Amino acid sequence: MAVAEETSLDPADWGEFRTLCHEMLDAALGYLETARARPVWRPVPEEVKAALAEPLPHAPQGASKVCADFRRLVLPYATGNTHPRFFGWVHGSGTPGGMLAELLAGAMNANLGGRDHGPVYVERQVVEWCRQLFGFPAEAGGLLVSGTSMATLIGLTVARNVKAGHDVRRLGLGSAAGSLVAYASSQAHSATAKALEILGLGSEALRSVPVDGGYRMDLDALARSIAEDRSSGLRPFCVVATAGTVNTGAIDDLAGIAAICRSEDLWLHVDGAFGALAILSEAHRPRLAGIEWADSLAFDFHKWLHVPYDAGCILVRRGELQRQAFSSRHEYLAGAARGLAGGDPWFCEYGPELSRGFRALKVWFTLKEHGLTKLGRKVDDNCRQAVTLAGRVRDHPRLELLAPVSLNIVCFRFTWPGATPEQLDRINREIVAELQERGIAAPSTTRLGGALAIRVNITNHRSRQTDMDTLVEALLAIGEELLSAATPAAAPVRQASV
Amino acid sequence: MAVAEETSLDPADWGEFRTLCHEMLDAALGYLETARARPVWRPVPEEVKAALAEPLPHAPQGASKVCADFRRLVLPYATGNTHPRFFGWVHGSGTPGGMLAELLAGAMNANLGGRDHGPVYVERQVVEWCRQLFGFPAEAGGLLVSGTSMATLIGLTVARNVKAGHDVRRLGLGSAAGSLVAYASSQAHSATAKALEILGLGSEALRSVPVDGGYRMDLDALARSIAEDRSSGLRPFCVVATAGTVNTGAIDDLAGIAAICRSEDLWLHVDGAFGALAILSEAHRPRLAGIEWADSLAFDFHKWLHVPYDAGCILVRRGELQRQAFSSRHEYLAGAARGLAGGDPWFCEYGPELSRGFRALKVWFTLKEHGLTKLGRKVDDNCRQAVTLAGRVRDHPRLELLAPVSLNIVCFRFTWPGATPEQLDRINREIVAELQERGIAAPSTTRLGGALAIRVNITNHRSRQTDMDTLVEALLAIGEELLSAATPAAAPVRQASV
Repeated sequence: MAVAEETSLDPADWGEFRTLCHEMLDAALGYLETARARPVWRPVPEEVKAALAEPLPHAPQGASKVCADFRRLVLPYATGNTHPRFFGWVHGSGTPGGMLAELLAGAMNANLGGRDHGPVYVERQVVEWCRQLFGFPAEAGGLLVSGTSMATLIGLTVARNVKAGHDVRRLGLGSAAGSLVAYASSQAHSATAKALEILGLGSEALRSVPVDGGYRMDLDALARSIAEDRSSGLRPFCVVATAGTVNTGAIDDLAGIAAICRSEDLWLHVDGAFGALAILSEAHRPRLAGIEWADSLAFDFHKWLHVPYDAGCILVRRGELQRQAFSSRHEYLAGAARGLAGGDPWFCEYGPELSRGFRALKVWFTLKEHGLTKLGRKVDDNCRQAVTLAGRVRDHPRLELLAPVSLNIVCFRFTWPGATPEQLDRINREIVAELQERGIAAPSTTRLGGALAIRVNITNHRSRQTDMDTLVEALLAIGEELLSAATPAAAPVRQASV
Repeated sequence: MAVAEETSLDPADWGEFRTLCHEMLDAALGYLETARARPVWRPVPEEVKAALAEPLPHAPQGASKVCADFRRLVLPYATGNTHPRFFGWVHGSGTPGGMLAELLAGAMNANLGGRDHGPVYVERQVVEWCRQLFGFPAEAGGLLVSGTSMATLIGLTVARNVKAGHDVRRLGLGSAAGSLVAYASSQAHSATAKALEILGLGSEALRSVPVDGGYRMDLDALARSIAEDRSSGLRPFCVVATAGTVNTGAIDDLAGIAAICRSEDLWLHVDGAFGALAILSEAHRPRLAGIEWADSLAFDFHKWLHVPYDAGCILVRRGELQRQAFSSRHEYLAGAARGLAGGDPWFCEYGPELSRGFRALKVWFTLKEHGLTKLGRKVDDNCRQAVTLAGRVRDHPRLELLAPVSLNIVCFRFTWPGATPEQLDRINREIVAELQERGIAAPSTTRLGGALAIRVNITNHRSRQTDMDTLVEALLAIGEELLSAATPAAAPVRQASV
């Protein structure tokens, strides 16, 4: 009995475990150092899936066996976003420094829900830096979260509670459930609607405001929609502006929306998932003018700051409102003037989570290691790469640009004379799948004006201009290949296209 | 221009960075290996707080400087839960294997929101293992989350949407806002009320059901409360049962509550934050009978499985209901039959988060490395240590047990003849602060029947029986010390107490 009890989960042989860790560290570093040499993506083979589907592990397998399984079954089948030609969705690329920070956070095993310890001061400092970066007032509050979806849920919870006109926390929504309405552009991310669904307001409480030719919210339409709702007896409470739409990277007129919010007494939430970090770029910063007026701002560190997944942030202009929306510390969470239970206020008072890992460390590490200036230069680099790519698209007869390039996203398609919309959608979808399956590059797809677009999003510090060349050449070759295979009659000979 | 662009965020000198990483790995391993040798906690000095409050880092500091800052300003001031005498709240202790897994996850930098890649299959397997462990049906769904607070939010969102009787996602709560009511015992964790607040139902929609002498929900009172609410025209929709209350570790009669839920057509959500993992213990498993009938189950890996923070899980009996509550994939998230956009269903369809890190890896690693049998033995060890501690408390005239020991939590206080309630509260609060500040041990406090209790929670794989002895001896010595200092007249001489 006593012997079994003395056996912790620590290694029986520290020396052996240490050796294993150093080996795995070398493997991890080698993995990052050779990111460019691998295929950007490859499918998980069926036999690997079968091997992963093992029975409940009752017996210990030991760390060495688990590491071997990891190297064989998991590591080779990554999402691909460490690769310089990963252009899908909006994924950051990670950094070796971020990985090191994860190791160190794992050693400390801190719970940032509250209490008084070093990691708490690191997260406070990261929030404080963000506050300064976005020009929020000293009274602002903030919290690190998994990403913009969670940040938006928090921001809109505060907005709802502040604007409902009664104690929603205690009494529930009551009649506010059918009357509160919010506004976002038709290009807004689905995270906003999802948050409203969770909050009990329903997705129909979100007005979809039309956009202009640059995919920015039409402010006249916004004003009209607010007026119509008011005259119908509804209660507008919030506008969600987007700084960097997911489809095209468009930035809403934040200052203009802020002015409307001020005059209409509405909460301004800004979804700046990746675009907010364009504030680090000298060139693009002016386009975010007005972001400092947001009542809440949601953005990610794991996108354009390349902090390892996951890491996002919510800032709330008046931190006390955030605390009022979430603080509920019962007797077992009571604070104390002294000791480990000090450290008021606790982070669990600013969001839904009580258990919170030390994700602040990788953000702190990234900001300090690289500095804001260099991080901003990488933002500029990606925007410049997008412009270059868009130029190549415009110049090529087989390619058609489908949206203006606002920041770092290029939406286009492969095309040919006489193609039907169905043919175009099919071949462009296939081109993207082929690019991914051949391991050359990983763009994703979206729809713009009904048409399927190849969507190249560049939030990748490893990308070079030459990667854009590789992408375009491979894409054209695959397009011609598919075209001649599918419609030999309709297709011109391949050499006409290059 | 071209040169600047070629500069990624990867190290300029990989060899130098590699050396730094190996040094830091040794520091991290040394930190864990010597956990017992450190004080369990120490306050963050004011000069350290000041040093952390540095200006926005515009210039790069380099990884080496950041690591030095970490070692000087952060690492020495941990929460303390790696230490064998950390007994506060319900914190797991972490493991070296879990730390290694965090390193490897950091290298892969995967986003588990969706798509088709290896990490997705790891998370699916972890969820599948949990499904088997708790006897959920094959159709069950699940998701890894930050912890039980988030898991409860998800479980209750599904419950609300299923039971509201109309399309809450689209239409909002409507009249359900004032009529849906839920039930939990007076000992339930505040996470339940917080979830109801976020969901727009309000904390008053939660009925606080009295408990019996063992701090378990009184099922007659539950049945009466449901009947009263129905006769008042309200709509009971959910019972939250607790497997391991935060105050005393009490386990509600899950089978009894499941029977009531079945006959009343109510959703059964089980908060099993730490207690659910007692299913790994041969001795305690029978006490969780009925957990397999839960409609949703929330629990943590970072508590009694010692996975590094943060890592919890939500299981939903009918996975399709979970998907219906959260799935919303727009054009930029469209799935595909082929390529990286395959892998349906995506995890983002099962919860509020679209960005999701690879926390599954550390859970997978822990379960495989140690195996369920050994992990269950550590659960048993902690429960046995609690019984031993409670015995020492019962046997000592200066100590008073304040609640029965159900699992791994011992609530008691230091006392003396003629003490007033105020004196007892004050001295016990001070004893806990002194134990923490002297770095000897870190229990927390709570309140039971109005009295402040020293709360020793043992979810610590490094704790030994001797640590209980150290705790009791130090606690008694500090109590006598405070007693003779504060009330020299009232206090007997110190030797009378040992």
